[in-house]
Amino acid sequence: MSSTRARSLVSKFPWASTPFIIGAPMRVMSGPNLALAISKSGGLGFIGPGVKPADIHTDLAALRGLVKDASPSSLPASFVSSKSLLPVGIGFQLWDGDVDSASRAVKEYRPCAAWLFAPRDGQADLDTWTSRLREASPDTQIWIQIGTVQEALDILRGKTRPDVIVVQGAEAGGHGRAHDGLGTITLFPEIADALGGDSSGIGLVAAGGIADGRGVAAALALGADGVVLGTRFLASTEARISKGYQQEVVRATDGARSTTRTMLYNQLRGTTGWPEGYSPRGILNRSWYDHQAGVGFEELKRLYAEATKEGDAGWGPEGRLATYAGASIGLIHSVKDAGEIVSELRTEASDIIRRNYSRL
Amino acid sequence: MSSTRARSLVSKFPWASTPFIIGAPMRVMSGPNLALAISKSGGLGFIGPGVKPADIHTDLAALRGLVKDASPSSLPASFVSSKSLLPVGIGFQLWDGDVDSASRAVKEYRPCAAWLFAPRDGQADLDTWTSRLREASPDTQIWIQIGTVQEALDILRGKTRPDVIVVQGAEAGGHGRAHDGLGTITLFPEIADALGGDSSGIGLVAAGGIADGRGVAAALALGADGVVLGTRFLASTEARISKGYQQEVVRATDGARSTTRTMLYNQLRGTTGWPEGYSPRGILNRSWYDHQAGVGFEELKRLYAEATKEGDAGWGPEGRLATYAGASIGLIHSVKDAGEIVSELRTEASDIIRRNYSRL
Repeated sequence: MSSTRARSLVSKFPWASTPFIIGAPMRVMSGPNLALAISKSGGLGFIGPGVKPADIHTDLAALRGLVKDASPSSLPASFVSSKSLLPVGIGFQLWDGDVDSASRAVKEYRPCAAWLFAPRDGQADLDTWTSRLREASPDTQIWIQIGTVQEALDILRGKTRPDVIVVQGAEAGGHGRAHDGLGTITLFPEIADALGGDSSGIGLVAAGGIADGRGVAAALALGADGVVLGTRFLASTEARISKGYQQEVVRATDGARSTTRTMLYNQLRGTTGWPEGYSPRGILNRSWYDHQAGVGFEELKRLYAEATKEGDAGWGPEGRLATYAGASIGLIHSVKDAGEIVSELRTEASDIIRRNYSRL
Repeated sequence: MSSTRARSLVSKFPWASTPFIIGAPMRVMSGPNLALAISKSGGLGFIGPGVKPADIHTDLAALRGLVKDASPSSLPASFVSSKSLLPVGIGFQLWDGDVDSASRAVKEYRPCAAWLFAPRDGQADLDTWTSRLREASPDTQIWIQIGTVQEALDILRGKTRPDVIVVQGAEAGGHGRAHDGLGTITLFPEIADALGGDSSGIGLVAAGGIADGRGVAAALALGADGVVLGTRFLASTEARISKGYQQEVVRATDGARSTTRTMLYNQLRGTTGWPEGYSPRGILNRSWYDHQAGVGFEELKRLYAEATKEGDAGWGPEGRLATYAGASIGLIHSVKDAGEIVSELRTEASDIIRRNYSRL
């Protein structure tokens, strides 16, 4: 049964192959180029929310242009076979989103999937968005990201059913559950059980702490129908990210000690309004160390503003700028093309699965 | 290369088979009966530290008696082939241990492995214990449990080399890293890389958050040569545990919300002396809720003392007694014989590996 479910998820994306690799919709940093590169190499890329809701129209228009203008031979033939859906997904942070604008974008551009995250009003908001987006584009899959067993149970009691649930473990970068998160290796199977195994008919993909083929193979072993990576794609040539930020993702090691969940970066850069219960993981830098040493917030904010003028030097262990990233940074050692990353992940994971099979 | 390493680890234990299942040396609760049952079913059981250092002699004597008195047909033939080492390991908490007593026990009983954890003085203590135990019983493997990349680097710079490193992720129950822990799915590969892949010649096993075949298969995918389970064996018939405690492990669900790391249980039961940097994970109960609600420590302690007189009713969501357990409690639904648990883990993990292979 599980096999049927997994096959049916990846098979909904005609260009995709197994192991099914998915690029997370990271805010701003997952732009059209990154998302398309991931899909072109047999994965599924998501465009993240922009600075403001309207940006999604710009990004989707750019993506459509990239697909239309590309020489046919540079794109998988199967891109055209998916009921003319765009071969990328799109991510929405519900608390900061606008369902009218989102519906218009989904209706106009028809991305193959819409990923919903962080509602202000829980399942009620998820139901509203799911209904509205399905009305706008019935073939666009609805993916919902959760990080707790309770959210899984809420979905089962909700008025709508997503096509896919993204289970995000506490190792993930950027925003996730603040205090009630748990590592992927335990959280994923417990949520899978809470959903009643395969009987729910909902696809299940794993996110959080995965940056190489070992993590991909582990997530598949846990029962995931696909595996989501975010931080790994921050270190891709197509990521919409400052060089200094990207280099810090490559440089930093020891994910346990060099990252933490803190609201400090949000506060310093003036990001407010996240619903209760969420916090971001980021790489520690001078802002954090000074904060720990007792430097006052106003002074930290002044120094932060100064650092924003330093360009790429604003990042790094002695930098001060917000450096959201996952605990997997210690597994990431170089910037590569996203397509190469996807290929390597699939090859590594497949090799591991073959090796462990040969040991049985 | 990795294949060679894995084969060579499990092959050091002639009765053991792959996937290699290991029972953690849980303090008091992992007694001779549990350890032997795990080894008899093709895994490797460890006896945990007792209430006082001398208890290990009693437990090892009992274990030797169990092996000697058993009818030959009830034991794996290969039990006798291992240079007359006892077919179980033994665990030491170094900060609370006595290296003289430990050396005498290891010399007298020759367990196949000694698992060292929580030194007060870091690598220096680990070096001392490793040398002393190897002197006492050269064929006894030395296993060292760590939870950070730094500890792995310390081992590489140490005077002695263990045979096996146990990488314990933050999901684990009982004591582990307090503030610098990380989930197994990210921690394990990062430590494996820090150790230089296979070149170190040290076996690597994974612990933390694993309670069923999915977790076992995931750990193998991460590259583990064996997989350690603790909490799962609390719910075994052979565990040396109160019924009320055991039933709570079975009852509790939602590992993220129903467990946490806290020193509260240690303080309430008068357990002091753990080195800096360690804390235990346990299941939340009335002691914790009252503590959160502001009830004073003296009152909590009085209520705790009363609860100790209630027998099995002292545990449970309305109980007050220390209930150390891992975040995997939501994956554990019944008490079973340890041998059945080991068999099921191996079957489930093997089925998953076969299924994922067939999907490539």
